[in-house]
This record gives sequence, structure tokens and C-alpha cells, in this order.
Amino acid sequence: MRTIRPTTEESPVTGIQKTTEKNLMVFSGRAHPALAQDVSEILGTPLVPTSAYDFANGEIYVRYEESVRGCDAFVIQSHTAPINTWLMEHLLMVDALKRASAKRITVVMPFWGYSRQDKKHRGREPISARLVADMFKTAGADRIITVDMHADQLQGFFDGPVDHLMALPLLTDYIKAQYGGQQLAIVSPDAGRIKVAERWSARLGGVPLAFIHKSRRLDRPNEVVANRVVGDVKGRMCVLTDDMIDTGGTITKAAEALVEEGAAGVVIAATHAILSGPAVDRLKNSPAVEVIVTNTLPIAPEAEFDKLTTLSIAPLVARAIREVFEDGSVTSMFDGHA
Amino acid sequence: MRTIRPTTEESPVTGIQKTTEKNLMVFSGRAHPALAQDVSEILGTPLVPTSAYDFANGEIYVRYEESVRGCDAFVIQSHTAPINTWLMEHLLMVDALKRASAKRITVVMPFWGYSRQDKKHRGREPISARLVADMFKTAGADRIITVDMHADQLQGFFDGPVDHLMALPLLTDYIKAQYGGQQLAIVSPDAGRIKVAERWSARLGGVPLAFIHKSRRLDRPNEVVANRVVGDVKGRMCVLTDDMIDTGGTITKAAEALVEEGAAGVVIAATHAILSGPAVDRLKNSPAVEVIVTNTLPIAPEAEFDKLTTLSIAPLVARAIREVFEDGSVTSMFDGHA
Amino acid sequence: MRTIRPTTEESPVTGIQKTTEKNLMVFSGRAHPALAQDVSEILGTPLVPTSAYDFANGEIYVRYEESVRGCDAFVIQSHTAPINTWLMEHLLMVDALKRASAKRITVVMPFWGYSRQDKKHRGREPISARLVADMFKTAGADRIITVDMHADQLQGFFDGPVDHLMALPLLTDYIKAQYGGQQLAIVSPDAGRIKVAERWSARLGGVPLAFIHKSRRLDRPNEVVANRVVGDVKGRMCVLTDDMIDTGGTITKAAEALVEEGAAGVVIAATHAILSGPAVDRLKNSPAVEVIVTNTLPIAPEAEFDKLTTLSIAPLVARAIREVFEDGSVTSMFDGHA
Amino acid sequence: MRTIRPTTEESPVTGIQKTTEKNLMVFSGRAHPALAQDVSEILGTPLVPTSAYDFANGEIYVRYEESVRGCDAFVIQSHTAPINTWLMEHLLMVDALKRASAKRITVVMPFWGYSRQDKKHRGREPISARLVADMFKTAGADRIITVDMHADQLQGFFDGPVDHLMALPLLTDYIKAQYGGQQLAIVSPDAGRIKVAERWSARLGGVPLAFIHKSRRLDRPNEVVANRVVGDVKGRMCVLTDDMIDTGGTITKAAEALVEEGAAGVVIAATHAILSGPAVDRLKNSPAVEVIVTNTLPIAPEAEFDKLTTLSIAPLVARAIREVFEDGSVTSMFDGHA
Amino acid sequence: MRTIRPTTEESPVTGIQKTTEKNLMVFSGRAHPALAQDVSEILGTPLVPTSAYDFANGEIYVRYEESVRGCDAFVIQSHTAPINTWLMEHLLMVDALKRASAKRITVVMPFWGYSRQDKKHRGREPISARLVADMFKTAGADRIITVDMHADQLQGFFDGPVDHLMALPLLTDYIKAQYGGQQLAIVSPDAGRIKVAERWSARLGGVPLAFIHKSRRLDRPNEVVANRVVGDVKGRMCVLTDDMIDTGGTITKAAEALVEEGAAGVVIAATHAILSGPAVDRLKNSPAVEVIVTNTLPIAPEAEFDKLTTLSIAPLVARAIREVFEDGSVTSMFDGHA
Amino acid sequence: MRTIRPTTEESPVTGIQKTTEKNLMVFSGRAHPALAQDVSEILGTPLVPTSAYDFANGEIYVRYEESVRGCDAFVIQSHTAPINTWLMEHLLMVDALKRASAKRITVVMPFWGYSRQDKKHRGREPISARLVADMFKTAGADRIITVDMHADQLQGFFDGPVDHLMALPLLTDYIKAQYGGQQLAIVSPDAGRIKVAERWSARLGGVPLAFIHKSRRLDRPNEVVANRVVGDVKGRMCVLTDDMIDTGGTITKAAEALVEEGAAGVVIAATHAILSGPAVDRLKNSPAVEVIVTNTLPIAPEAEFDKLTTLSIAPLVARAIREVFEDGSVTSMFDGHA
Repeated sequence: MRTIRPTTEESPVTGIQKTTEKNLMVFSGRAHPALAQDVSEILGTPLVPTSAYDFANGEIYVRYEESVRGCDAFVIQSHTAPINTWLMEHLLMVDALKRASAKRITVVMPFWGYSRQDKKHRGREPISARLVADMFKTAGADRIITVDMHADQLQGFFDGPVDHLMALPLLTDYIKAQYGGQQLAIVSPDAGRIKVAERWSARLGGVPLAFIHKSRRLDRPNEVVANRVVGDVKGRMCVLTDDMIDTGGTITKAAEALVEEGAAGVVIAATHAILSGPAVDRLKNSPAVEVIVTNTLPIAPEAEFDKLTTLSIAPLVARAIREVFEDGSVTSMFDGHA
Repeated sequence: MRTIRPTTEESPVTGIQKTTEKNLMVFSGRAHPALAQDVSEILGTPLVPTSAYDFANGEIYVRYEESVRGCDAFVIQSHTAPINTWLMEHLLMVDALKRASAKRITVVMPFWGYSRQDKKHRGREPISARLVADMFKTAGADRIITVDMHADQLQGFFDGPVDHLMALPLLTDYIKAQYGGQQLAIVSPDAGRIKVAERWSARLGGVPLAFIHKSRRLDRPNEVVANRVVGDVKGRMCVLTDDMIDTGGTITKAAEALVEEGAAGVVIAATHAILSGPAVDRLKNSPAVEVIVTNTLPIAPEAEFDKLTTLSIAPLVARAIREVFEDGSVTSMFDGHA
Repeated sequence: MRTIRPTTEESPVTGIQKTTEKNLMVFSGRAHPALAQDVSEILGTPLVPTSAYDFANGEIYVRYEESVRGCDAFVIQSHTAPINTWLMEHLLMVDALKRASAKRITVVMPFWGYSRQDKKHRGREPISARLVADMFKTAGADRIITVDMHADQLQGFFDGPVDHLMALPLLTDYIKAQYGGQQLAIVSPDAGRIKVAERWSARLGGVPLAFIHKSRRLDRPNEVVANRVVGDVKGRMCVLTDDMIDTGGTITKAAEALVEEGAAGVVIAATHAILSGPAVDRLKNSPAVEVIVTNTLPIAPEAEFDKLTTLSIAPLVARAIREVFEDGSVTSMFDGHA
Repeated sequence: MRTIRPTTEESPVTGIQKTTEKNLMVFSGRAHPALAQDVSEILGTPLVPTSAYDFANGEIYVRYEESVRGCDAFVIQSHTAPINTWLMEHLLMVDALKRASAKRITVVMPFWGYSRQDKKHRGREPISARLVADMFKTAGADRIITVDMHADQLQGFFDGPVDHLMALPLLTDYIKAQYGGQQLAIVSPDAGRIKVAERWSARLGGVPLAFIHKSRRLDRPNEVVANRVVGDVKGRMCVLTDDMIDTGGTITKAAEALVEEGAAGVVIAATHAILSGPAVDRLKNSPAVEVIVTNTLPIAPEAEFDKLTTLSIAPLVARAIREVFEDGSVTSMFDGHA
Repeated sequence: MRTIRPTTEESPVTGIQKTTEKNLMVFSGRAHPALAQDVSEILGTPLVPTSAYDFANGEIYVRYEESVRGCDAFVIQSHTAPINTWLMEHLLMVDALKRASAKRITVVMPFWGYSRQDKKHRGREPISARLVADMFKTAGADRIITVDMHADQLQGFFDGPVDHLMALPLLTDYIKAQYGGQQLAIVSPDAGRIKVAERWSARLGGVPLAFIHKSRRLDRPNEVVANRVVGDVKGRMCVLTDDMIDTGGTITKAAEALVEEGAAGVVIAATHAILSGPAVDRLKNSPAVEVIVTNTLPIAPEAEFDKLTTLSIAPLVARAIREVFEDGSVTSMFDGHA
Repeated sequence: MRTIRPTTEESPVTGIQKTTEKNLMVFSGRAHPALAQDVSEILGTPLVPTSAYDFANGEIYVRYEESVRGCDAFVIQSHTAPINTWLMEHLLMVDALKRASAKRITVVMPFWGYSRQDKKHRGREPISARLVADMFKTAGADRIITVDMHADQLQGFFDGPVDHLMALPLLTDYIKAQYGGQQLAIVSPDAGRIKVAERWSARLGGVPLAFIHKSRRLDRPNEVVANRVVGDVKGRMCVLTDDMIDTGGTITKAAEALVEEGAAGVVIAATHAILSGPAVDRLKNSPAVEVIVTNTLPIAPEAEFDKLTTLSIAPLVARAIREVFEDGSVTSMFDGHA
């Protein structure tokens, strides 16, 4: 038997003691630096200097210019177009943090890419939203902060904590300030999202609900779909709400239907302004008097137009980061819903 | 260097060749043996003899009485009350199959226990439906067959194939046969499930939709909730549909509201007959002329009543098992929706 | 190339520094709240307020009423009847903690449910004790604290630290105080547990050992089993020890055999008082003068009887929790045996 | 939208069909080639030609000389001294099979290395037997075949099927043939292994049991331990059984105690002949008339002695391999105990 | 105790037996359909009909138009620009196959995207090539087929079989046919890849080697780097080889250096024709008389030029797929190097 | 509904708060205690007392003599001969730390065992270096510290942080001090390692490079290999560098070739002194005037010889451990290359 023993044994407990410190560091990919910059300014700590560029064949290179060892890392990236590029950059940033010994890695994705493919609509499809969650886990993510998920069930796609922030108070406070004096109605453009409209209604003091119901017109078989307004909107200022505006087709058709039905006016409000393809033109030409969105996704200068109001999500994200860092309650921020 | 060489080397490729055979075996827990028995009879193979009993302190013992080595195992259990007992038995059966060298293990759970807790409704809750999926994975499950999940997103909770069977054709064929001659309307008892009602409507040839909208009565603040019927149901035979009937409160209140609104009659149809607590009394006393369910869950003899019609899910489950065993397409069975 | 740089660079190291604090929080399921309450009082911190109830179909709901973010969580639950219900509640509580960002989760199960099924006694059985360990790992458990495992090898079923507490000093100190003046013998009711009896003997100063040996009576083939006492017990106060008393059949038969063999008296001592089925009647009617157990499992009021002495395990569990929280040595508590 | 379509679509189902064949291949490490050779001859397939040697610094190199793609691989290695070398070779062989696309990999370890460290005897020890199981899993093992594990609980250390073969019938058949005419007794050299002796007794028709009990001699405090025989062995031929003989100290002292107690003779029987250090001398000089072991471990020529009888485990291992390959029941081979 | 028993028990073994069939199916992403088409034609089975398109915001949708249940799937995608898009499509295709019950999934990536980031060149970088391997594992890949990896160590990045095909015989056979009559030299453009050039030399019968050595010119400190030819190339036809041509800078400078050094001519040969940015212009204007590549990556029509020769890798890939499907030896195809 | 509530509720947040402390503890296996002792002395904390010995059959036993709960553990072991023994001891030490609740476990292996088998050189080989990484992960390792890996890609074999220390500054500083006044050349003994020689050259101020090129002699077919010096070494003091010296054959032949080529002298420098088999004799008898190595591996007293200089790696390892413990930057220590 051979026992390894130190030469000196005076101390009862071996080792070097030290109080543990933690260090919050905020990182940003290239998709939406303005949002990350805002968040970092509110938090009062600059973004960690980071090199990120594309090689000639499109492969992405990232590197942090400063030690990140032991830090509590928050990596902000917006999953906007070109979405696969920014998603891959996000993943590479997490991998680099893992290998550089970050202590905890929180993925901040204000919009969860591929969240609409959250189930197999038909056989032999992927469940892309779960794949995205799994890839972040594989890369080294410990937790996720996101805003207004397409379906609440996505929380269950990640094997770890998911902080689900809600833009609802931000949007409804604005609505109240601007349109509080008018007779309002909350309108959902799609039967599947009425539950969300109910939360809006409650937050605005119980204003009436209405929905747009798409149905085949049995009377005129050649016209495929009719947008029928269910609920009484006559003479009311209608707030059309959705979680995202992609090409804008559904929501602008809904706005038209509301006007036809006698609405006093229409305001469109949504969290995620994807605004792809014909969205801007459709919104500009729609009867809506205002289109209110947040900056979870960057809005290109050419996509801006007079009626568009963008509210900043940065204070919400910054507050969530601080609460996570300080082990406070994110839930308490949002009426127990996170 | 030392090389291990066989003494004989005449054969160019070493080894013993054999054509691979596969063997379908069906197992049943104790929760709902009648369903499993029906499935096994349709498939034409008896259930594998299995010992299963409770020890005095409630611990469950299971053992298979026959070799299961190399088999393609399908383990049927209904997640009915006492649900935690049957869930644990289901898990133990999978563990025993894994350790006894089953080649592939498919969990057949006609009703996915805890499927309603598929998200955090409020902070600091579990996501129980994901935990159930993870526990089956841990125990050794390779795949899941289930019927009418509470939310389609649950497919994404399991890291593997999930075959999602639909009772819709079974139920609508019955409705068509019984009530096809009348003026029908499809009614959803809850705003959150209108999408499902749309599928019913389409399957029944485009009959009108209606929903029950629960709202606070602003006029009478003391009455908490009013059930308002949205859509025209006057003079129509209303088919009230839901995925499950638990205590029956929501759906019987909906039936009453429909009658008040002038419906010609009400038929209630749901896949999963949980029928707990006051459900049977409520259904018996409700204005519904018929309550149509399937046998995904066992119905106690004392829970049966005159108006109750139970359609057997066994042929659907048997067909899915056979397709899975033979590598056929389950999707093709159900209009591409599995 | 695009480099993201903060606007300010004066600080050499980016980030917000903060000393790390840790927070011990104790949680209890509904199986045995009295034990958890005792533990929390000894520790000097109240149990975390928790909602837990059953839905009508038996599904369990749990939620913490307070933020648990970043805490060092200890979740106490006794695996008593209805054992599958309390096991599932325990798992759901761990899942909820994981998803609510607890920093470390310790499962405190004074009695490890299903620990007797720790191997395949025959082919095609599950190894349920391993499945229980795996399910807690899957749910999010980082470590386990348990008392007197059925077999020491169960430590190896969990991929992480297992603190194995021993009730031995508690029980033997009581025995010494009550019966120290008498001539004692330690008796094992089963050949397979003599090793444990040896530890009792050593702790009591080397008192003689005896065992009960069950054997087929070769002389009378019709009588199945005889309980033979091996070792000299004549005139001695016999301490019959086991890790648990379930239905009490084995241990009461052993007590009778000891009396027949001329023992001066019998005291029964065991850690886990499962006391299922006929146990209480058997113990009441047995020749034992006292039955000494701990409260690792709750004892129903109707199961209490005059001869029953219950020692509290709470101080031991509380001390282990504190040592784990403070990174002290649990081993040092129990003569190096944890 | 871009759809990739094949140019020809005549076949309803795409693809190339082929009946699946499986191919049993047997591999051997360098620890005990004679056993592997015997197994391969009984199976009727030569060992797969394999290069295996040590580099100058002790690193091991292995390579298969033939394609192993898609095979059902059985890798035989005895965990004998130098045990860490052979263990590492075993692991490397599994890794090479995984990377060369073997379909299923079964680790055949007649003796499970490190199986005695199956729990923490004291704090801050490893659980080496679990580590061995985990390392094989990591390397790519799908299942384990082993003989007479030190504790049955080791089955639960591996997350997959473990076939537990028993040498008991082999050894007792030999005993019956050689000593069946005499008055026998089965003796366990250690209180902790009496359960195994009970199986021996049952297999030999219910012969009496006895045990050796090591205790501190209270009368002579300076002599540490006395070996006391518990049970009547006078005039009987005593069969001393254990799972393994390592240094032989315990079992030879037990043999001496039996002779002192008046035994007619002593036969030693054990499955695993580790025979390290002074074992051979001790056994030679012991009063045992015969020492019966199996060849789960190789016996060096210099370790052989007149009284030593070695029974071959090869037929048992070969039969298990064939049953696993053909999906037969290994349990049926051994009275339901595997 | 309740035992579940089938009503009929005549058959000794329960279940439905069936011979196992396997079905090879080939899938292609949108990156390089021509290569996949060629492979499928050589194999004699059409590509599986697949829908794949981009949503307006760049998210990719994929779906198979035919059942893939139980198939042996080979998914071909070239990791070419826009590389992150095609990588994501590749991952989604694997995920869809896993969830649709493919039996085995082989990722065929003729060029392994991000393979040059196979280590941390400096601190705080990702190891992107490992991340790519891990993401495919997470999505459901069982194995990888690839051609001429950047470093052989990448095999170790994937936890499973990696078939490493080599274009070397294809390229050298062409060189022999075209330039066999001339005095050849093999030249590596980079000191780090001389080992590969040695294989070329051996395959071409031992022709002389030379390398280009980049060094700082000590004599003229202002000129950063000089390309020095090491080895005698005077009067020889130089074959400049590399694994890939990206922007073409290194290799065309090397060609110039060879000409300056008196080479009779220069032929450039490489497996992967990334040809990004200025590559085509550089190659066109270089002194090379021919540039020989394979079609592991698609070559845009505008990237083609007179001197460019493209050899098809399709027969090699098809042969590997067939060998994997039939469990033959891929190694035997390539001189034992796969 | 049953809610568990504490009896006292005055504190707004439940729990016991405590500042987190961390404790650096250094452990050593038996392979190279002198190095560990040096490291511990530089750090100023004694090695943790550890029992470690071999059982008679070669199984290793380890146990820590002091509580390690919550510590930041660094486990030092040199992978020297008998390498499989020390590797297994290293793994067991990690397992014991995991089960004893160490907070973070860093494996310090100055030489990464099996690092030369970092790819399949031919088909059907293992990738042993990856297996070693995976086994440490399985045992419980969180990170690795190593010195001069054989290939940088090995970093990617471990799923976590790998700190790659470089002996280059240590060795070149010594060279500068001893031979700085002479005309130097850096020579690589193998074409595959020229990249490393380039770093040496840069560090020494741009001294000329040369390589040894092994080639078949075409002129004399019977002589297998010629060592040709590429580059001008005439009259220069040549520093022959490699990462390791195993049997010393390659490097001593290279030294001879350099002398033949007219070198003024030869100095051999390498990080890892494996020195197995004939290495010492070869080096003694070689024309090298000095052989400079580090003590990453222990050098047996009989392996020491006059020309051998051993530089201590202990300060480098100690500094890395301190930086890791204090979350400093290891990269900054070595010019950004870790």
C-alpha cells in the first residue's frame, strides 16, 4: 500500500479558500446589434468585444476578444433573415463560450426561430422548433430567454429553464395611452389565437372580443375563402392583435373585413415584426391607422413607414437578464406568467 | 506483436449467417385489459402472459412469463385513475422489456397521461407532459403511439417517432350515420379548441361552426362568468366536441347554453372519457340526447348510462401497430395527419 | 469583417461583478409533512409554500408560491403508500424546480421506494430501484439523501452523489439506554442480513449474534419451512433487527422462535416502518415487548399501538442537509460510513 | 417552392429492398485466448482475425483484419491480471467495433473486473464496478454477458440487458458425480454469502448448511478474530463455496476451522479462480482434498497443482451467445435466474 | 395478484413472425441535386420525392412525399454556399427522418462544412467542425459518409461510424492517363499538407515531392512573405495538390513560384472546388495548364472555364452507399484507408 | 386541494442565505508524485491525503482521507507506463470525486495518453484518444488541462473546456540562454510536424528552418528509407524539435543525418520524454550534445544520463490551475494560443 501524503499537515482542511464572485457578461451576434446595444446600456455594462465575420464560402468565424472564463453569459441574437446564418452564428457563439469556460450560458432569442414548425402539420415533416432547442442544448446552452413564443408548449421543448417574457404590458400600455378614450374592441385575426386576445381584453379592462373566421363560402363555391367577423365591432376602434406579422396577408385582410363590418377604425399590434416579402406594402395600403410592433427583430430602414410605431423590448430583456443574474423572480415581472 | 488468429481460415468471411426475423408481441398493463384484448384479437396474436400485482405497500411487481428477446414490443396501458399507479406500471413494463432484450419498444398510450400540463400556466410549475415523455425515454421506449393528443406540440416532447392517431373519422362516421339527415352545427365548448372544430366541420361537409365564449358579465359584476354562444345554432342539431370529458362541467354548461339559444338538440362527442367525479351525473342530467365517446380509457360499469355510446378504438390501434410492425405508413391511414 | 465593439472600453474586464450567495430552501411533498416540518424547524427555515393537489382523474398539480431561482433545493418526500402517487409528486416537484432555475436539487427520500426490486430475481423483471434513480436524474435531481438503503449497491444506481445516512446510532443509543443493563443478543431474522447485525453488535460493545435460519424440514416434508435459531439466545434479551418491517410476518415469526428457544425477551428494531396489511396486528400479538422504529415513513394514527416506539429521524436529516449545504462532511457524521 | 422529384416514378414505393441477414462474429482479446478459442469451436465459427499488441510505452493497439460491418459482435475478454491492461483492451475493441459499424456489440466478461468495489465501503471511494459498466456503455456496448456476479445488484449498473450466467449447475453436477455418495454439508466462508450457499444446498437436494462466522474473541482480546463454525459439520464432507478465490486466505482458514470442528473432509469450490499472491501455496497446503474452479479466468501453468480441478465454462458461454444471437431465452437455460 | 393471460395458449411462443426486409432510400437536399441524381441513377433507385422550400423569412420547410418508415436512409447534401442554409436543411431532413421512423440515417456530406475550424486556433473560438458533428447526432444521424476530410482527426468528432472516402485514386488515375508520359513532380502548396502529397507520390509510382514554404524574407523586411520552392522541380510537370480550393490565392501563388523555379508546367488538382470570391479569375490567369477538381460541391455555370476539368465523385459515393447498405467493406474499396 | 404552508411567514424570502466560498484542492495519482508535489508547493496548498494501492489481482483502490465536498478539484496524473494502470487510477479518482460531491473536476494530464491514436490510420481501428476523452467525461470530468497535444484537433474530442498549455516558451527560453550566441537552425524530424517548427523559429527570432524527409531511395531499392535533410544546416547548431520522444529512433537518425550534412552540432528538444525501450541508449550514443525535455512524464533514475536536461513544467501547470480557479485567462499566459 502506498499512500500519498502531503509533507505538511498543519491545516485541518486542505485547499485554498476564496469567496466566489460572479460576472455578468453580455454578448451580441451580428443580426440585431442595436437591440443588444440598448440592453447593454440599460444594464450598464458594455457588450463583450467580439470578432465575427463570414469566410468567402459563407462559413462564420467568431471569437471573443476578452477572457470569458467563469462568466454568467447572456448571448443575444435575433433570428431574422437570413435566419439560418444568424442561427448558426448564435450556436457557434454558445459553443465558443462553452469551450472558453463560461460558467452559465443563457441564450437570449427575442424571437425563437422556426417556432411555427412546432408540430408535424402533416406526416414526415420535422419538428424544427424542437430541433432548434436541442441544438442549443448540444452547443452548451443552460437556459433560454425568449419573448412571446408562438405556442406556450415550446417551453417543454428545452430541457432546462425557459424564461418567457411577454410584450403584452408594453403594447397594451401604449394602446391605453393612445386610444384609451375610444370605444375599443380586441380582434384576433385567426380562430386559433383567441386565447391570446382574451388576455389583451382582460388587460384593457374587459373590452369586447371579436375574431375573424375564415370559411369556405358555401354559397359561392368559386370564391375560396371568406373572412367573416364574429362579434360586434360596429363603431368601435378595433385592435387587431397577433404574435407576429410575416407577409401581412392575413392581418391586412382582417383589417379590411373589420372596416367593411363598420369598425370605427383599425389598429394593428404584434410583437414580432418579421415583415417579409410584401408585408410593408400591404400594411401601408391597409385601412389600419397605426401598426404597432416591438423591436424583437430588426426593422430595415426601407421597411419603415409613417404608420409604423416600434416599441423597444430592450428594457424588458435587460430586466430579465438582471433578474436571472441576481436570482430574482422573472415571474414577478409579468403577473406570474413567465 | 501478438495476433490472434483462428486455426481455420478457409471461409472468406468469418461468422454465422442467419436471416433476420422479427416478432410482434403485444403486452398489456392492468389498467384497461379489455382494450388490449380487443387489439390482440384483431391482430391475431394473444397478449403475452404477464404477472403483475401490487405488494402490500403499493409497489408494483411485473414479470413476463415468456421470452421476449428480440421482439418488436407494443405495450398498451391506459392512463386512467389511479393514474400514477398505471403510469408507473407502464414504465416498469418498459424497463423489464429493455432489460430482457426486446429489440424495439413502442409505448401505446391511447390517452397521454398529464397531457394537459403541457406548459407552465404560471411560474414554478412542472411541465408534466414532457416529464412523462422523458421518463418513458429513460425507461427504454423507442416510440409512442397515442390518440388525439391534447396539443399537437406534444409530439415534440418525445425524442423519437410519435404516431398520432385520430378518432375523428370514427366519431364523424357515427355522427353521419345517426344524425346525417338533420341540420347540424359543430360547436366548440372553448375558444381555444376551435381549430379542432374546424376539422370536424370539414369532415362533415362544411357544416356551420359555433363556439361557446366564456366571459365576465360586465353588466352583472356579481355573476362571474357567462357562456355566450357565438355563431348561429338556432334550430340545428348541435354536435358539441372536445378531446376529453373530465368532470363534464364545461361541456354540460355549454349544452345548456345551446338549448337556451334555441338549438334543436345537442349531441356531445369526445375521444377520451375520463368521466371523473360528478361527470356522469352532469351528463345524465344534461340536455344532450347522446354522449359519444371512445374506449381509450376504461369506463366503469357504474359510469355507464343510457345516453352513453362507446365506440371502440381497438381497430384503429391494431391497424397502427400492424403498420408500424410492417413499416407501412400510419400517415396514409388518416389523411396525412399522423 | 465586422467586429462588434462596445462604445466604451475603459474597464479592463467587461461585465458586472457580484459576490455569489447561496440560499438553502426546503420543500415538502404531501406524503409526510410532519417529518419535513420537523426538519425545517431544526434547520431554522420554514418550508417553501407549495400548492399541491390532485385533479379529479388523479393527476397531480404542484407549484411553488415563491421564487426558487438559484436556490440550493432539498425536496423531502416519503415513499409511503400510495407510493406511486407520492413518487410521481416527488418527480414533478423536481421537474418544477429544474424549470424554475434552482441551482442544485437534492432529493431527500428517507425510504427509497422500490428499493427491494434492486435486481432481477428472475428473468424478465424490471430493476425498479434503478428505474427510480434514473427517473429522478431525468427530472433534474443532482444528488440523493437517503436513510438505510436496502442494499448498499443502490448507491451505484444513481449517477451522482448519494448520501447514505444511518439510523443505527439512533436506534442503538435508545437500546443502550433502555436495555443496557440486561444480557443482550442481536438477532437477524434473515440469513441475508447478518452483515448488518454485525454492525449492531459492534456498536453495542460486541454482544453475541444469532440468526434465524429458514429451512425446509427434511424430517417432516409436509411442513414447508422451519425457523431455526442459530446461535445461543437462552436467557438473553434479544434485539431482532431489520431494515424495514412491511407485513411483519418474518419478524414476528422470528420473535416467536426466539421465545421458544428460551430468550428472556424480544425487542424488535427497524428503520423503516412500512407496516402494511396485517403488520400492526401481528406486531401487537407478537411476544415482542417493544417495537422500535423511526419516522422515515409516516405512521397512521390507527397504526399506533402501545408497544410501538417511534424515534425521530429529523435531526439526522436536518444535519445532513446542513452539511451538504455548507460543504461539510456527511461521512464524518457516521463513522465514515456514508 | 422547389420540389425534388425523381425522373422516373413508376414504382409505387421508392428504394431497393433486400432481406436482412445477420452475422454472428466472435472476437477475443489477449487475456485468455484459450477460453475464446473453445467458445468459438463450440459455436462452429472461427474467431475474427485480430491484431493486438502493445506499443513501447504500454499503449495498446487493436485492429480487426476483416470487415465487421453489420455484424452481431461478441467480444470475449477475461478481466485477469494485469487487469487494467485487459480492461482497456476490451474497451478499445468495443470502440473499434462501434466505429466499424458493428450492428450490436455484446461484451462477454466471464469475470466482471472491479466487481467487488460495488459500493462505497467508506466515504470518498469510487464505485468502480459502476464505472466499468459506464465505460463499456460509452465505448459502445449494447449488452453484457457475465458469469456469477459478485452481487446481483450489478445488473442494475448497466443501462441495458445483462445476461447473468451461473456456474452453479456445472459445479454441483461435478460435486454430485464425485462426492454424491457421501454425507455432504454446504459451508459458506462468510456470513454475507449464505444466500448463495442456500442455492447450492437446494441444488444438491437439501443438504445441511453451515457458515464460518468471524468474530472478535471477547475472551482473548489480543487475538483479533476467531473463525467459528456455525452449524453441524461433524463427520460430513464439507463443500466450501464462494464466488471467487483471490488470495485464498479466508477460504483456507475456513477449511482449517472445519477440520478442527470434525469435518470428514473439505472440498473447495468457486467460480472465479483469481489465485493471486499466496493463493496457490495456501490452497496446496490447506486440508482441502480438492479445489474445483472454472476457467472464467486463465490459470497460469505455474498456478496449477494436483488438487486443482478446472471445469470449462466455454459450453455455457457458447450456449448463451447462440441464444442471444437467435433471440432465444437465456433464462430458460438456468432455471429462470438469468 | 392479477395475472394477465391470453385466452388461447396453444402456440409455444406468442407473437407474429415475419422476415425482416430492409429498404435503401436516397434523399437529396437542394444544394446540389445533380450529384444526388447521378448517385441515385448509379444505384438504380430514384430519389425519394421531397418538398423543400423557403418561407418568406428564410425558414426552411421540408417534407417527404412517401412513407420512409423502417428505411435505411442516405441523405445527400453538399455544404456549399449559402452554407448555413444548406446545413440547416440537411439537419431538418435528418430530424424529419427520425420522427418518421427511418431505421438508420446516414448523412452523406461529400464536403464536411466548417471542417477547417477543427481546433481553436486562438483562445475563445468555437470548434465548429465538432459542433456540426454534434448537431447531426442530435438531429438523429447514425453515421456519416464524407470525402477527403480536412484532417483525419475529424472522424473522432462523431460518436459513431464515419466512412471516409478518398478521391485520390480518381484524381491520380486521371493524372496518369493525361500526363503519365511526362516527368512529374508532386507539389504541396503548404508545409502542413506534405503527408497528403506523399500519398499522391506513392500512388503515382514514387515521383519526387516538393513543397512551397512560406517564410518571412529576412533580407527584405518590408516584403511579408516569400514562397520558396523546396525540392527540385526544374523541367518537371508539377502536380500541385490540395484538399480544397477556396479563394485560390495560395495555390495560384504556388503555381507562379513553380514556374519561376523552372517547372515545365503546372497542373492543379484538388477534391473540393469551393471556388469562392476571386478564385475563378485567379485560376484562369494562373500559369496552370489544367485545374482538376471533383463535383463534391456544385460548380456554378459562370464558374466554369476552359482549363477546368471536373471528375464525378458520384460512382464513389454510390458504391459506398451500396456497401454500407449491404454491410460490405468500404475499407476494401480504398486500400484499407477508410 | 391541500397546500403545504409553513407555520411562520414573516420573512419575505424563505431560506438560509450564505456567501458562496470555493476551495481549490489538488489531488495526485501515483504515477508521478514528484510533479504533483512541485505543483502543490508552488500553489501553496498541500496535496489532499489520498490512499491508493493495488489489490493482489491488480485492481486499484483509491480513497480520499479528507472531505472534498464542494471543492474545485484538480487531479494530476501522468499517463506514463504502465499507462493503462495509471489511466484507470485517474478515472477512479474522478469517479470518487464525483460521488463525494466535488463541485468541479479538472483532469490534469500533462501528457494525454493514447493521443497518437487520434484517427483511424486504417479501417477497423479504434480512435483511442477520443475514447480516453469520453471515459473521463463519463467518470465525471468537467474540464481538461494538458500540455502540447499531439494534434490540436484533440481539443474537439472533449465536450467541454480544454486548456492547452505549451512548453514552447519554457524550452525556447532555455535554448536562447544556452545557445543564443550561436548560429541556430530549427529542424523538424518529420514532414508532418513542420508547422510546430515554424512556431519555434518565430519564437527564436526567425531562425532558418529545415526538415528531415524520409523517402524511399529510388536508386537503391534495397535500402528502404533515406533521411534527407531539406534546408541548409551547414555550420549551424541545429535544434531538433518534436512533441515527444518515445523509442528515439526517428530523432536520433535525424541527428545523424544533420551531422552528415555538416551541422555544427545538434541539440534535441521535446516536451514529452516517454523514453521507452531503446530510447536512452540511442540518445546517449547519438551525436546530440544535449537532450532537453520537460517532466510531464516521470523520468526513471536509470533513464537519466549526462546529456539529459529536464525542465520543470510544474510552474506552468500551477499557474494554469490558479488561473482556472480564479477565472483568469489561460490564453493570456501563452500568446493567445490556449
